[in-house]
Amino acid sequence: MNTVELIRKKRDGQSLTTEEIQYLIDGYSKGSIPDYQISAWAMAVFYQGMTEKETADLTMSIVKSGEQVDLSGIAGVKVDKHSTGGVGDTTTLVLGPLVAAAGVPVAKLSGRGLGHTGGTVDKLESISGFSTEMETKEFVDLVNRNNIAVMGQTADLTPADKRLYSLRDVTATVESIPLIASSIMSKKIAAGADAIVLDVKTGDGAFMKEEADAIRLAEAMVAIGKHVGRTTVAVVSDMSQPLGFAVGNAIEVKEAIDTLKGHGPADLRELSLILGSQMLVLSGKYQTAEEARHTLETCINDGSALAKFKEFIAGQHGNPEQIDHPEKLPQPQEKISVPAESDGIVQAIQAETVGLCAMKLGAGRATKEDQIDHAVGIVLHKKVGDKVKKGEAIATLYVNKKDAVEEVKKRMISAIDIQDRPVTPPALVRCIVSAEGIIQV
Amino acid sequence: MNTVELIRKKRDGQSLTTEEIQYLIDGYSKGSIPDYQISAWAMAVFYQGMTEKETADLTMSIVKSGEQVDLSGIAGVKVDKHSTGGVGDTTTLVLGPLVAAAGVPVAKLSGRGLGHTGGTVDKLESISGFSTEMETKEFVDLVNRNNIAVMGQTADLTPADKRLYSLRDVTATVESIPLIASSIMSKKIAAGADAIVLDVKTGDGAFMKEEADAIRLAEAMVAIGKHVGRTTVAVVSDMSQPLGFAVGNAIEVKEAIDTLKGHGPADLRELSLILGSQMLVLSGKYQTAEEARHTLETCINDGSALAKFKEFIAGQHGNPEQIDHPEKLPQPQEKISVPAESDGIVQAIQAETVGLCAMKLGAGRATKEDQIDHAVGIVLHKKVGDKVKKGEAIATLYVNKKDAVEEVKKRMISAIDIQDRPVTPPALVRCIVSAEGIIQV
Repeated sequence: MNTVELIRKKRDGQSLTTEEIQYLIDGYSKGSIPDYQISAWAMAVFYQGMTEKETADLTMSIVKSGEQVDLSGIAGVKVDKHSTGGVGDTTTLVLGPLVAAAGVPVAKLSGRGLGHTGGTVDKLESISGFSTEMETKEFVDLVNRNNIAVMGQTADLTPADKRLYSLRDVTATVESIPLIASSIMSKKIAAGADAIVLDVKTGDGAFMKEEADAIRLAEAMVAIGKHVGRTTVAVVSDMSQPLGFAVGNAIEVKEAIDTLKGHGPADLRELSLILGSQMLVLSGKYQTAEEARHTLETCINDGSALAKFKEFIAGQHGNPEQIDHPEKLPQPQEKISVPAESDGIVQAIQAETVGLCAMKLGAGRATKEDQIDHAVGIVLHKKVGDKVKKGEAIATLYVNKKDAVEEVKKRMISAIDIQDRPVTPPALVRCIVSAEGIIQV
Repeated sequence: MNTVELIRKKRDGQSLTTEEIQYLIDGYSKGSIPDYQISAWAMAVFYQGMTEKETADLTMSIVKSGEQVDLSGIAGVKVDKHSTGGVGDTTTLVLGPLVAAAGVPVAKLSGRGLGHTGGTVDKLESISGFSTEMETKEFVDLVNRNNIAVMGQTADLTPADKRLYSLRDVTATVESIPLIASSIMSKKIAAGADAIVLDVKTGDGAFMKEEADAIRLAEAMVAIGKHVGRTTVAVVSDMSQPLGFAVGNAIEVKEAIDTLKGHGPADLRELSLILGSQMLVLSGKYQTAEEARHTLETCINDGSALAKFKEFIAGQHGNPEQIDHPEKLPQPQEKISVPAESDGIVQAIQAETVGLCAMKLGAGRATKEDQIDHAVGIVLHKKVGDKVKKGEAIATLYVNKKDAVEEVKKRMISAIDIQDRPVTPPALVRCIVSAEGIIQV
């Protein structure tokens, strides 16, 4: 095969075969095809797109570039959940114990946060002693014992994706639906998922700012799942304002505990129930989303979800006392109110700015090497549509280092738009995309 | 400046500024911008194109990447002529002496041939002793003395073009009009041209197979010339069949001599007169193409063009006796006829195949390292529209090594389409493109 001919074929709008895509990714992984040919191909893909089959072939070529987690030691359908990344997105911490309590195994590989979005591993590490570092065998044993475990992502999965992503990042070829879709799906498949529930965020705080793009991405990933035999359902959900109220690490853990107790933020609870229901249905143990949702609500109401969370934390060397007493989670030196500057109704809360403000306070990383502070972050007190009085706290900053406080306060005030007119809050869930089509919710 | 942002800007259809293009080419030349970013940019240019101003900026950035030939020691407007490459394209050998005889200096940098197209330096080296290796000072002195000199291209001109072209060649980004146009024009400008006459070939034997593409390329180059203050005129001419009859080196020199004597092939003579007239007008010494053409015809008729050719050859250490006695040019061991297989009228002569056949016999190079044989090649006996009788020679192969003869004969027979029906020969000149617009000829 000739690499230039393959680039030309894609450039001119034709589709590459399974073997041709395998040749490109293989060659790139082994170093026989240089960066400059792959970047030209990626730019051609940016313009010409890829068919569903090509995208699925690319996904599986990336999966084959590295190791795959073997979850065959766990009985039943292993359903994974993935969020495309948001601000205050604590769903995994709620969902995991909920689904496990409902009798479906949760074997989850999670990553750390970067930029304005947080990471599940960082949040869980707020709990003293908690560790996600383990071998696959221990991971499988934990899932078999507790129905739930979270393992940090290993370096050996999808190395071609890491190289491709780094190259796309410096060649303006990130924003391509099939390339994004295959990147996400390859990681889930390599992590051993039999079925996948995706939470595709849309809006200011999301990677996909436009709902139409988010739906296209959801469709592309669902199509990959169909082509490679891993049933995939995608929930397109709002990220125009942060999810829940807390944006940080320990404060998001506390919010997850509240939600598992039945009194967390309505949006976090609702999205967790919707995503969790989809996971239960994909596991094959539940027939309908309604039946599944009913079970999940019961697990909250009867305390079994919270008990499962404690079991999960203890299983990975975390201190379960902090779950019973969230005040024992890392606390900041100071809590500083951000007062509203006028009366009115919250029109919008710029999620990306809130995420960046939390990062600025130390809750997130600007670069991979940065250390994070688990105690700090931002707790919002309002959602879009809420009434506000001048001087009332619209947010509280959880602070250890005061140097960024003044800047963060200013940015938070400008990020929360208060006007004297009614507003319709954004719908939490926009639609659900499955292989059967799009369901409006 | 940020390279990724510049790629993204072009990717999304915006134009880059002079400084931005300079930054890209500078960084690429110095190695601070890697191949993989330039190939992504080139692919974006393939899809989005470039404005006239961007293309001119790119051209001048490439010119500035290396040395420029200083022709200020030659009085008057230095007019260069460039052909995009064809089969049997002997015009430079006719034009040079013709224009010089008409009193306009010809200071020409020429290259060697590759693939199915020949090179002027190769052809001239058929003449024993002739050399194009010289320093710029000697080149300027020769032009001042004889009004004409041909120097081989030096390695120090437009190094960015060489790197860019090599990269485009392996990333399927060759076929972009602004990139082709800036590549050609940068070399002419770096070679010291004040004004440029372009012969843009179109048809089977040309780089631009389609006339519409050739016209677009001509327009792009004329626009560059206008933007950078080097008046440029482009003649779009036929390369659907070879130009003249001879395709080789010594045999093309002989054909040029015949043409300078007034009895060469009609098409070679006509194209030389048209291109030469444009050169004379651009020099400023002639007011109209008609006046210029009249002078050129006189230079043929009174023998002054042929005398100038001998002067030129002698000036560069060539043996002028071979001009008076072309039978003293390198001769092949054997001349082998290719007979027509049927009666009829020549419908088409595939120029590219004829060029490749001549290469196969040793007249051209498959790779840059190949040695060529000046004596060999192909002399056609027919042009499109000519009548042929079965068994009559349609071409003669000039052969030193017989191993390729059978294959070449077969390919020549299939390259010359003979049918029993009338045909309209292709027009030699399709149009002339100047800054004022397109003139249909």
